[in-house]
Amino acid sequence: MNTLDINLIRFVKHFRIGSFDTDYSGKVKMTSICNYLQEIAGMHAEALNWGINDLMKQDLSWVLSRLKIKVFKYPQWKDNLRIETWPTGIEGLFGNREFKIVNEEGTLLMIASSSWLIINIKSKRPVRPHEIIKNDEFENAEKLFEQSISKIKPIKLGKLRESIKVHYSDIDINQHVNNVKYIKWIIDSCPKDVLYNKEIEEMELNFLHEAKFGDQLIVNAQSKSENEMQFSIQNQKSNIENCRAILNWK
Amino acid sequence: MNTLDINLIRFVKHFRIGSFDTDYSGKVKMTSICNYLQEIAGMHAEALNWGINDLMKQDLSWVLSRLKIKVFKYPQWKDNLRIETWPTGIEGLFGNREFKIVNEEGTLLMIASSSWLIINIKSKRPVRPHEIIKNDEFENAEKLFEQSISKIKPIKLGKLRESIKVHYSDIDINQHVNNVKYIKWIIDSCPKDVLYNKEIEEMELNFLHEAKFGDQLIVNAQSKSENEMQFSIQNQKSNIENCRAILNWK
Repeated sequence: MNTLDINLIRFVKHFRIGSFDTDYSGKVKMTSICNYLQEIAGMHAEALNWGINDLMKQDLSWVLSRLKIKVFKYPQWKDNLRIETWPTGIEGLFGNREFKIVNEEGTLLMIASSSWLIINIKSKRPVRPHEIIKNDEFENAEKLFEQSISKIKPIKLGKLRESIKVHYSDIDINQHVNNVKYIKWIIDSCPKDVLYNKEIEEMELNFLHEAKFGDQLIVNAQSKSENEMQFSIQNQKSNIENCRAILNWK
Repeated sequence: MNTLDINLIRFVKHFRIGSFDTDYSGKVKMTSICNYLQEIAGMHAEALNWGINDLMKQDLSWVLSRLKIKVFKYPQWKDNLRIETWPTGIEGLFGNREFKIVNEEGTLLMIASSSWLIINIKSKRPVRPHEIIKNDEFENAEKLFEQSISKIKPIKLGKLRESIKVHYSDIDINQHVNNVKYIKWIIDSCPKDVLYNKEIEEMELNFLHEAKFGDQLIVNAQSKSENEMQFSIQNQKSNIENCRAILNWK
């Protein structure tokens, strides 16, 4: 690390959990947490001059490719969160970024790790991030998980859970389904007794292919063990896979 | 008006529009605006000692019954909003409340009016709000619309638009579908060419009956004129109507 200002190395934003961010029990929804993470990743990239607006000038954009979250304690409606994020450098084509979520008392609530691709928005192909990111400034940065986020293996025998039509409210400014919507559909496809009696302890996602307005998608799921479920979202017509995920419950 | 502190008479909160609050064009979603309104109504009620937590001690709760929003200008991603709210007293069984949304430059973006019922959460029946609210402090408060929010007439010939299953993510801390979800389903049921070429200028909603986890609902719609559509959401099995709405486009 050299001349970068500490505010640029680590970016911090506070969020107050609104009633609309919480579930039936007043506990924060994972989708709201993921919204916050995407938002501050974008804000920090902007502060570092790698923001979407900067990249767009070269027909490039950031796309979230992998995400892993571990929950120690769920915050509730009205709680104030402090979320910290920092890049951890380049790994292959991925630009990696970590997140730490603490409450007002400083208790560690969640940690998250993410891998992003820089894609050419015309060809949809990833480009080498090395020209955009000065990697040497970040490569010794703290990593929160022991291992990089893995490529999730395909589901062999998927059971049909849900049929999804992509609507207006699912589309973001990149003109495709926002990543957080896959997380919503995956969690919503779980049985009520799991959702009402257990909590997600760990969540790992691979975002594989974009979906568009009007697409018909299918959520498949498979129980791996009592507290582990694996998911796949794919296009009903083309069978192209949009997203794979593993959820661990406690 | 007498001894009430000005901070209690008018309640103000600022919101920064996140990327997750915006649509394909970077414009704020009406659902996010409605989330903000519900949130500050709750915060203000709490400051006035009529909050849900206070009412729950008597087995009572606030339920949003009618909502009307007029849009002058849509804010965008990253804009900071100042939202102001104040009660306008009791009208029949309704406790009424107004909202004003301005941007950082002070430009008026939206106005809204709402009618709430106090219900007994066991019997689900409304109770007279007069014992809870000191009406004389608010009855001369500023009203933003010329007329009270009306009772919307039933749709005669509805066309089936969408079939909805109520999921985990739709349920709020009152253990039923949050009002904003009806707004999401109504807007999502509109044709793409309307959603991509027009903007909602005015929206009026009557919330009639609660829906629960697992319910199957239907969204019906009817065009009243080129720029006016009417909607009804009802339970597929019981035909009980959950919500009626009118949207005006420009």
